[in-house]
Amino acid sequence: MREVSIVGIGQTKAGEHWERSMRDLAVDAISAALKDAGLESADALYVGNMLSGELTAQQHLGALVADWAGLEGIEAVRVEGADASGALAVRQGYLGVASGLQDIVVVCGVEKTTDADAETALAAWSSALDAEYESFHGVTVSAMHGLLMRRYMHEFEVSREDFAPFALNAHKNGVNNPNAMFRSAITAEAFVKGGMLADPIGMFDAAPLCDGAAAVVLCPSDRAGRIASKPVRVRASGVATDRLALHSRRDPLFLQAAYASALKAYQQAGVGPSDIKLFELHDSFTVMAALSLEACGFAERGKGTRLAQEGAITLQGRIPISTMGGLKARGHAVGATGVYQIVELALQLRGEAGANQVSGSLGMAQNIGGSGATAVTHILEA
Amino acid sequence: MREVSIVGIGQTKAGEHWERSMRDLAVDAISAALKDAGLESADALYVGNMLSGELTAQQHLGALVADWAGLEGIEAVRVEGADASGALAVRQGYLGVASGLQDIVVVCGVEKTTDADAETALAAWSSALDAEYESFHGVTVSAMHGLLMRRYMHEFEVSREDFAPFALNAHKNGVNNPNAMFRSAITAEAFVKGGMLADPIGMFDAAPLCDGAAAVVLCPSDRAGRIASKPVRVRASGVATDRLALHSRRDPLFLQAAYASALKAYQQAGVGPSDIKLFELHDSFTVMAALSLEACGFAERGKGTRLAQEGAITLQGRIPISTMGGLKARGHAVGATGVYQIVELALQLRGEAGANQVSGSLGMAQNIGGSGATAVTHILEA
Repeated sequence: MREVSIVGIGQTKAGEHWERSMRDLAVDAISAALKDAGLESADALYVGNMLSGELTAQQHLGALVADWAGLEGIEAVRVEGADASGALAVRQGYLGVASGLQDIVVVCGVEKTTDADAETALAAWSSALDAEYESFHGVTVSAMHGLLMRRYMHEFEVSREDFAPFALNAHKNGVNNPNAMFRSAITAEAFVKGGMLADPIGMFDAAPLCDGAAAVVLCPSDRAGRIASKPVRVRASGVATDRLALHSRRDPLFLQAAYASALKAYQQAGVGPSDIKLFELHDSFTVMAALSLEACGFAERGKGTRLAQEGAITLQGRIPISTMGGLKARGHAVGATGVYQIVELALQLRGEAGANQVSGSLGMAQNIGGSGATAVTHILEA
Repeated sequence: MREVSIVGIGQTKAGEHWERSMRDLAVDAISAALKDAGLESADALYVGNMLSGELTAQQHLGALVADWAGLEGIEAVRVEGADASGALAVRQGYLGVASGLQDIVVVCGVEKTTDADAETALAAWSSALDAEYESFHGVTVSAMHGLLMRRYMHEFEVSREDFAPFALNAHKNGVNNPNAMFRSAITAEAFVKGGMLADPIGMFDAAPLCDGAAAVVLCPSDRAGRIASKPVRVRASGVATDRLALHSRRDPLFLQAAYASALKAYQQAGVGPSDIKLFELHDSFTVMAALSLEACGFAERGKGTRLAQEGAITLQGRIPISTMGGLKARGHAVGATGVYQIVELALQLRGEAGANQVSGSLGMAQNIGGSGATAVTHILEA
């Protein structure tokens, strides 16, 4: 296989884009990424998207986005794995370049959730769960994570308030990200007083669904130096799955797919958790941030919230997470989120993260689908 | 890159599976393919599917199918490109093995259209078109192909009846395929008298939407001989796109993506149309069969129907097509169709096509999405 590097990144603001359609957002992000790479064309396009078919009656996004982005005629395909669609698209682009069959690859994650009312969007999002055994009974993604958080609190004897540092950290970091949906810090008091979404999940535990697009340009590492002044190497790419339905898992409080995909990534890169200097994790809900940290070896079982309370997850901590706001404050543009994570990690490694810049040349991103059934882990190096 | 071979194939009957859910169909096809290969596990799973989100509120099929097929924990992803989803999944599996990062890959195409009423299914299928500029105005996939066929008849001065040989050939070949949805031959008279679907498209011009699943197992060619007694080499894999909306194309009567993907495949394999001994093409509508033959160099522009009338497309002809019934008689299980084509082509090249066996060791399959915006071409060799 060939080594792969990122030579271009682009993103739109995450949020409510009433004036832009899905294709516009995708084109904006791709144009920015190609401009950043100084390129005008590519061999292949991978589009990560979850909800377009259900919310806007538009499938076939590979051809659509290639067409509108001015990449007429190129190989193009859509990749889907619920909330992990974005990172899965990066993974497929990585395989394309690694294979030697594709030289310049564009990966775009895009989602437009505001074309439907919130109830419809939430129902569509819940198609990430098992339709016959979970969502059929009316359970939503939020409700499923409510059950998970309640169980976590019971098993590990922690309180709702113990999850607050995840939300506070994300919102604090979002302030300095011009592309974040929410750019205001919150207080511990606000966290506690926030309305309930799915008890014990409150308003500030849950990331907001939103619109947005992000894109990266990949190429073989031995060509990257000639294209970009600051190429970022993809040191590892790992994907794993778990039983789809939460009730089928051996231990619902251990994210087996997150663990397995991180293990694959660590082994490919020849590194361990202590080598990772920042971690863009999947904080769709605060409980998922805790579980991801535990699955990836940054905290012991049941100690994820303690790690956060100790300040280890802040920009100055041992393992900064959600450095540009995470899903919580930047916004969770479902199928685009995994690409946003890679773009933000690349910004950090290029030293272009502004006021939120952290040090260290090795970072990790993890994108999770549904209640944990798909996990995609990438390790990048400056 | 590594060379790739097919070491296992499996399929369910195409048709109406009232007693089986989508996951059951996928498991049946995958189990058969793994059994055929003598394997019990794999490194990765690619699932081709178009309509599950819209028709059964189930996305996230990578994790779902891996879970139910007993492939717990493996890398898994869904791939979508409208009707071309199946062959795009084969393409991604091919890249995975070619990259050197995946050794044993399972590709499954699956679709369950009968869980919704026909009107809902047809509307969902039309999300293959441009939602903002085509289907928004009420046009369906069938109507779009009606416009295309009418234009073809006008430009090339052929009649509705001139398309009959495509339908007659497909139905004749379907008789001997135990997995075909329709196993009865039709007459030229029946073709003409069949009711209109979207003038000039009649009942026998259009392939039926149906349920079904097909699967293949891929591995590096240098290992294939140790796994299978009759491995089939993937000599080439090519993907191309075209403008999504029919009205945006320079010439709607030339399938640019089909041409470009076939050209990529010919170049990779170092062969031309005259070397190809059978062609599993995308006869979703008879006009698409004609246009595919023209785009791939088997007939001159506007002469596709004449090629059929001369008998060249029959089992005894120069370039047999739809040898196991094609989309028309085997049935068009949308996102599964591209994998069915590969399975049927492999059956032919392994000499296991029964009464429909054709000679020749080099065959081609082409899967098309929407009204031609995505095309995937594979060349296989015994």
